[in-house]
Amino acid sequence: MCQLLGMNCNVPTDICFSFEGFCARGGKTDEHRDGWGIAFFEGLGCRVFVDDQPSIDSPIAHLVQQYPIKSMNVIAHIRKATIGQVGLENSHPFKRELWGRYWVMAHNGDLKDFEYNSAGYYRPVGTTDSEQAFCLILETLCQAFPDRQPPLSELYSVLQSITDRIASYGIFNYLLSDGDHLFVHCSTRLNYLIRQAPFASAHLIDEDITVDFRDLTDAEDRVAIIATQPLTDNEVWTVISPGELLVFHHGNLSKIP
Amino acid sequence: MCQLLGMNCNVPTDICFSFEGFCARGGKTDEHRDGWGIAFFEGLGCRVFVDDQPSIDSPIAHLVQQYPIKSMNVIAHIRKATIGQVGLENSHPFKRELWGRYWVMAHNGDLKDFEYNSAGYYRPVGTTDSEQAFCLILETLCQAFPDRQPPLSELYSVLQSITDRIASYGIFNYLLSDGDHLFVHCSTRLNYLIRQAPFASAHLIDEDITVDFRDLTDAEDRVAIIATQPLTDNEVWTVISPGELLVFHHGNLSKIP
Repeated sequence: MCQLLGMNCNVPTDICFSFEGFCARGGKTDEHRDGWGIAFFEGLGCRVFVDDQPSIDSPIAHLVQQYPIKSMNVIAHIRKATIGQVGLENSHPFKRELWGRYWVMAHNGDLKDFEYNSAGYYRPVGTTDSEQAFCLILETLCQAFPDRQPPLSELYSVLQSITDRIASYGIFNYLLSDGDHLFVHCSTRLNYLIRQAPFASAHLIDEDITVDFRDLTDAEDRVAIIATQPLTDNEVWTVISPGELLVFHHGNLSKIP
Repeated sequence: MCQLLGMNCNVPTDICFSFEGFCARGGKTDEHRDGWGIAFFEGLGCRVFVDDQPSIDSPIAHLVQQYPIKSMNVIAHIRKATIGQVGLENSHPFKRELWGRYWVMAHNGDLKDFEYNSAGYYRPVGTTDSEQAFCLILETLCQAFPDRQPPLSELYSVLQSITDRIASYGIFNYLLSDGDHLFVHCSTRLNYLIRQAPFASAHLIDEDITVDFRDLTDAEDRVAIIATQPLTDNEVWTVISPGELLVFHHGNLSKIP
């Protein structure tokens, strides 16, 4: 299995603090040694760092921990391989283009007997169930709205329906983003918190590191953090219910009309 | 304008030496300060590092210079912005999926009055002429061969024809790869060399660095390097003729049937 980390904010924010605790689970405090990856949306652009080395040994992970890339939407993943060999083509997050925007996805879970051998436009490169699910989601959205991105409520409805269909094959926790919204589906286990004024300090579970967000934030800043397991031991994390598909925007939960 | 660097080999090889000289042109020995990028194919996977910082100041470029990622196909680019703002979404190389493989492209030149506002499946995210040309190439290949990747000679013929059409708008030097072949189109300026036994030493033009390839290679190794301007001053570079579309495979020039 794997672990997921997501961030959605109303101002470009770096994820160094959370990523440091998360990375420790890639071989130090936990066993997710089979690769890792992180995607940062920056404006319309999106850069993805992936490596098939364990995150605790990876020079690229060390760079990402120390280089404060500011982003409003981040998706990260550490992998313990189940379906699909260890290899770069099987490292999450996956990235594709739809409607002239980049879309990024990372998945935690197993989809047994799920197979999507597309003859359409989104075809998997690697051999994971996760990339197959991503391709099916994009193909479904593209077929439903061939010309352009629809309003959120219409997109949500199609996304929920294809998500439910895929989730019937097994465990399907995922983070998905177009750089604007962060879609979060909980199948078995995901937690979130929203940091906003009044800010306080936070202490990592996996490393003895504390950050005082009062020193780093403005009053209007809002940052949502989503993680498979809570990353800090002195903040209140909200458990997402199995079956829920949440949408974060500008660091807040969006109400879908 | 920009500069291009490509590598195509018969064994996974790192590009640290060539990339070090190339990077110096991103603000030290030349003026290409508006971003840079590099794509490494590794098996079916492909990772792209991009930055909108000048390559000489970029921590990510420094990592790539020092971290010997081994690949059989590499495409790199340093940018001096002409069409399209400085931004991550406009940084080459661009990467998309076609026929279940990743395709990567970087472009040097200007395509005046060229516009491709696709209603198809490959749509540009940024505002460069280069990404528009890449999308048109992929859309054309995909329409011509909707089911699967055709034999090289058939692919080459369609690629040459769409390349000629796009090149009629201006300067269109490009490197394009599916991780197996490296397609090289010269519109105005590109050079290549093939390093193979008997190996010798090479000295960079842009940095005072010499490498003796006899210490680093096996007798069967073959590495083709393609660059806008020669990178070394003691090797023989071959000028590619304007209008030529070359194909490199396993470090050799492919003959197209």
